[in-house]
Amino acid sequence: MKISILGGGGFLGRKVAERLAQSGRLGDHVVTGLTLFDLTPPETLAAPFPVTCLSGDVAELPEAAIPEGTDVVFHLAAVVSAAAEADYELGRRVNLRGTDAVVDACRRLARPPRVVFTSSVASFAGGQEADLADDARQLPTNSYGAQKAAAELILSDAGRRGFLDAVNIRLPTICIRPGAPNKAASSFVSAIVREPLLGLATTLPVGEDFRVWIASPAFATDWLLHAAVLDSALLGADRGINPPGLCASVGEMLDAMERARPGSRALVRAEPDRVIAGIVGGWPAKFQASRAPGLGFSPHGDLDALIAEFLAHDLALTRRMRGL
Amino acid sequence: MKISILGGGGFLGRKVAERLAQSGRLGDHVVTGLTLFDLTPPETLAAPFPVTCLSGDVAELPEAAIPEGTDVVFHLAAVVSAAAEADYELGRRVNLRGTDAVVDACRRLARPPRVVFTSSVASFAGGQEADLADDARQLPTNSYGAQKAAAELILSDAGRRGFLDAVNIRLPTICIRPGAPNKAASSFVSAIVREPLLGLATTLPVGEDFRVWIASPAFATDWLLHAAVLDSALLGADRGINPPGLCASVGEMLDAMERARPGSRALVRAEPDRVIAGIVGGWPAKFQASRAPGLGFSPHGDLDALIAEFLAHDLALTRRMRGL
Repeated sequence: MKISILGGGGFLGRKVAERLAQSGRLGDHVVTGLTLFDLTPPETLAAPFPVTCLSGDVAELPEAAIPEGTDVVFHLAAVVSAAAEADYELGRRVNLRGTDAVVDACRRLARPPRVVFTSSVASFAGGQEADLADDARQLPTNSYGAQKAAAELILSDAGRRGFLDAVNIRLPTICIRPGAPNKAASSFVSAIVREPLLGLATTLPVGEDFRVWIASPAFATDWLLHAAVLDSALLGADRGINPPGLCASVGEMLDAMERARPGSRALVRAEPDRVIAGIVGGWPAKFQASRAPGLGFSPHGDLDALIAEFLAHDLALTRRMRGL
Repeated sequence: MKISILGGGGFLGRKVAERLAQSGRLGDHVVTGLTLFDLTPPETLAAPFPVTCLSGDVAELPEAAIPEGTDVVFHLAAVVSAAAEADYELGRRVNLRGTDAVVDACRRLARPPRVVFTSSVASFAGGQEADLADDARQLPTNSYGAQKAAAELILSDAGRRGFLDAVNIRLPTICIRPGAPNKAASSFVSAIVREPLLGLATTLPVGEDFRVWIASPAFATDWLLHAAVLDSALLGADRGINPPGLCASVGEMLDAMERARPGSRALVRAEPDRVIAGIVGGWPAKFQASRAPGLGFSPHGDLDALIAEFLAHDLALTRRMRGL
């Protein structure tokens, strides 16, 4: 099975690549080649199959990024929420023109590949009161979410036409994201736990009763890998999946952190930020995610497991990434 | 008030232009200039204000198509359903890249204009059993509908950002469309009534119990003109309007035609077409359209009024257009 990861240099792309390299398989299939594509050249990794690393603009996707014979494309290349809000042109170019380029690349292949696309909780509205059904309308309150919802439409239609086989995963906010704070409006959701676990002070831009819809990097990676091999005929015309994330309040997250590392909670200082709260406040705090478990997507673990996952796998990685 | 009509050479664009020319006003505002833009040069018309006619590719929209000072843009430029299904590139170029070009043109203006966009019943699924609420999800079953739904997302987001003020009208299938059959999958919906009223034989590709969600040219024009002047603050974040169309079976339409012109029904011959039925069969037959009347959109007349409207206004026009 030949695989391409667009956004293969990002942390989630890297997680997917590492899982493939560790097992040498995707589902029941032996991996025979992996292409990692990103804006800056992705680092290679040791694997029991050839790994090709490429860099470029996803909106001008080179043919080699999705070479002939590709079976699965993970399309994770994106301009994240606050960045797409700050730079309309850039968000549109990467999040929409990039998706068109993926469609065109897939059309050149002899066999239509599975395309696993990371859409987002940010493509929905509803805010703190939401408890969204699987057929809830996407009514985004930010450019990133609008571009993700539009890209889902484009990919689903390209799938219907037989150019590719689309599975659009509306990822929750990833928590705990390794590395440093980034330009996502939701960056604080990881930072309020990651930074104290590193022994660093951090700020909380929303109230402690603010609830978020989250998923750990390991669960998000599991879901993406599962989306690559599930029987897509089970999806019918609706290629959007709301995976079974976790609804947690910021206070509950800080409590779980304090249980794991007593004293860490004292490193979090309230510093309300209306811009951040305005963006993430529009995202729904909860999804029913009724369809996903029946399609084989693993239910999420609890907050203690989420903290334990970070301490076991991503704390040391984060220290290395940041030279701490 | 300065107005641009993109797709100003099409029959609906022409109807809007004629209404503006007749009254010299849009709502309470005096019209001070009109620009008509289309792929082929639109014909000018006599009006109490200057009329500029321009032609070109909407995806490469010339600045003059939406000149400085434009208050209202009617964005009706589109590649219709069967054509967008037959030519993916062309549909994407006009229906998506064209919409991006409209956003960019609006961003150049000193004041953000109202943009009235014609989205479509084809952006929804549900078929014959549907009775869709205003917040129903758009899950299109054809490329035209997918591109219209994506364009709505792009325009709504551009509106939220303050580049323009979007109102997206999901037009029902227009019936009775003047002129000749066209490449829309729904072309038969008009043809089964228009052709017999012209004394011409025609074919019916679906069964007589097949129901359609329709609007007459006059009601569609009314709604577009109203969308240009309504207080858009009343819409909130949801810029999509399902106007109050008419749900009718093909048999009911033929009965109304027979009442108006006895003997005309005999000119309709059943000739099932699975391709056409497959496309229009996915479109919902009925919408609840709960929100539109409260926003001032006129409720639709009955089938007898719809036939009478054609006989009074569009029968002679159609004869002229077709040299009959």
